[in-house]
Amino acid sequence: MAQDKARVLIVGTGGVGTMAAYALETGGKAEVTAVFRSNYAAVEKDGIDIDSIEHGHDIKGWRPTAIRKTVPNVKEENLQPFDFILVTTKNIPDLPPTVADIIEPAVTAGKTAIVLSQNGLNIEKPLVERFPTNPIISSISYIGATEKSHGKIIHDDADAQKIGPFTNPGVSPAAAEAAARRYVAIYNATGKLDVTFDGDVKFVRWRKLVYNSSFNSVAAVLRMDTCRMRMSQHVIDDLVRPIMLEIVAAARANGVPLTDDVPEKVIRVDPTDTFFKPSMCQDAEKGNFMEIETIVGEPLREGEAKGVAMPTLRTVYGLLKGIQLQHREKKGVWEAKWTPDNPYL
Amino acid sequence: MAQDKARVLIVGTGGVGTMAAYALETGGKAEVTAVFRSNYAAVEKDGIDIDSIEHGHDIKGWRPTAIRKTVPNVKEENLQPFDFILVTTKNIPDLPPTVADIIEPAVTAGKTAIVLSQNGLNIEKPLVERFPTNPIISSISYIGATEKSHGKIIHDDADAQKIGPFTNPGVSPAAAEAAARRYVAIYNATGKLDVTFDGDVKFVRWRKLVYNSSFNSVAAVLRMDTCRMRMSQHVIDDLVRPIMLEIVAAARANGVPLTDDVPEKVIRVDPTDTFFKPSMCQDAEKGNFMEIETIVGEPLREGEAKGVAMPTLRTVYGLLKGIQLQHREKKGVWEAKWTPDNPYL
Repeated sequence: MAQDKARVLIVGTGGVGTMAAYALETGGKAEVTAVFRSNYAAVEKDGIDIDSIEHGHDIKGWRPTAIRKTVPNVKEENLQPFDFILVTTKNIPDLPPTVADIIEPAVTAGKTAIVLSQNGLNIEKPLVERFPTNPIISSISYIGATEKSHGKIIHDDADAQKIGPFTNPGVSPAAAEAAARRYVAIYNATGKLDVTFDGDVKFVRWRKLVYNSSFNSVAAVLRMDTCRMRMSQHVIDDLVRPIMLEIVAAARANGVPLTDDVPEKVIRVDPTDTFFKPSMCQDAEKGNFMEIETIVGEPLREGEAKGVAMPTLRTVYGLLKGIQLQHREKKGVWEAKWTPDNPYL
Repeated sequence: MAQDKARVLIVGTGGVGTMAAYALETGGKAEVTAVFRSNYAAVEKDGIDIDSIEHGHDIKGWRPTAIRKTVPNVKEENLQPFDFILVTTKNIPDLPPTVADIIEPAVTAGKTAIVLSQNGLNIEKPLVERFPTNPIISSISYIGATEKSHGKIIHDDADAQKIGPFTNPGVSPAAAEAAARRYVAIYNATGKLDVTFDGDVKFVRWRKLVYNSSFNSVAAVLRMDTCRMRMSQHVIDDLVRPIMLEIVAAARANGVPLTDDVPEKVIRVDPTDTFFKPSMCQDAEKGNFMEIETIVGEPLREGEAKGVAMPTLRTVYGLLKGIQLQHREKKGVWEAKWTPDNPYL
């Protein structure tokens, strides 16, 4: 093991996490331990096959330095501390275990920087509370990468990320920024990726929400790809653009100066020749839990707290919670029954 | 044929239309011709089996006076005029053929009264335009009756209707009311049904919309029964009640004095021991066309025209149109493609 390599733990090894593992290892400045779950056996046996527009179309049987079935317990296993933990799981604070719960055994206080490659607002808050002396880093990713089956990755849209420090009162701004910049440097060591430092985390996150709160959530309720939404025209006019305008207003009310041209640009950002279904839509179709609170609930609360009317997003939020309830019931987390305190009995 | 019996044509012979046929015939004051479509062969061969809470549980092989595969052409076939045409089909003005198109061959100008047993607003307008000298009658029905398979009817909730005249400028109010009262009399000849005259058609229709615009439309978007909606609580709080309050406000702005207690009553109107899915929800699940315009679009337009803010219903309307578009695509009425004039291409 080269002593100068950063020790990186990756939690969440779907398309995004696996491509991060590959970029970090092949850049030569990091040594990756990756946690695989349902795909562990396949990866242990045959490694990972990758078809990547940036790293090569014919990568076969690749493995990171170490693979694990569970998050390592650094103290109990007497491991060297991790310099970074990259989290690419979904963030569903309403359904435990939380991100903080999951990564806690691998975090070394005052040392490990935690990189959250997840969308939405206020995702750092539970981590700041749990890990008050650790740098918390924001990654907003625009990569297109999917695990088609266990250990088979298609990476078909460039690995672009904007990375910057979240505010953690127990970490100096200089140390937080240094951690974020170091992460960019080791991730981008190959020099060929569009992974850059951007200190205005709040702006970057609200800007991405213009897409996610609108297209993602409406696509989930309708189970409709973004091409058909645009072909229909009325789904844009009645739902997508109204939500985008509500998000822009909420962002501005929170000091984030999104410009007037953003919605019309974002409406047209997806390719017109593929029927792309955003992640929340795919989750809705598969009966998986959706990231409703971070992508819809939090911006709604942040906007309404500043007096911004957000009736379209508020209604879609209620519907998404209804769909999530159906998923909870199917997974046995909720039971359809009358409780004596139910006012509608 | 008894000369004093009213000649009634029934278009739409699912549960509601078939139970109307049975009530009208067995009352002894009407002679029914019923149009069967997909169920024609079954009814011609074996008649209709009915399990009814009001007429008997073991009715076997019943047939009305006449059955038809298509709407009769009174002139071409040189038939006696119909006194009444009862329409119980779905009303989907955005998808031809319209109700007026369908029944036109059977309407005798100045003679046939047209009974619309359909929910929603402004359904009489195209009929007033097409048939300016015919009484148009409103029936708001609360019956529970379902065709389980061709010619097999379960009638499990009482046949209650409120019947009154729509306004048709070419028909005197007295003649319109007389036609409605005559229909009530012949329908209710058995004396055991709760089918009554109510001249305040506007009130009756808005009152029913408190349920239909809210429970029906939210159930359709979520594909959720009304029990689960109430068990969840939040689906009521976030979606159903807000829509009900919007409908009440829209009704009042249109001169219909719905009282404050209506929403809380209607929220609790369904039985708590059956997982009932409203008709629009069943249509959404089956990929059938939904009555979006009469039940959602028209009340929305009527309310907004009077300056009432209806953001929850407006959002649900947009989503229902999106679902309808998917149904249109599946039925080959809409094609997912870019047209050169699409501004989102």
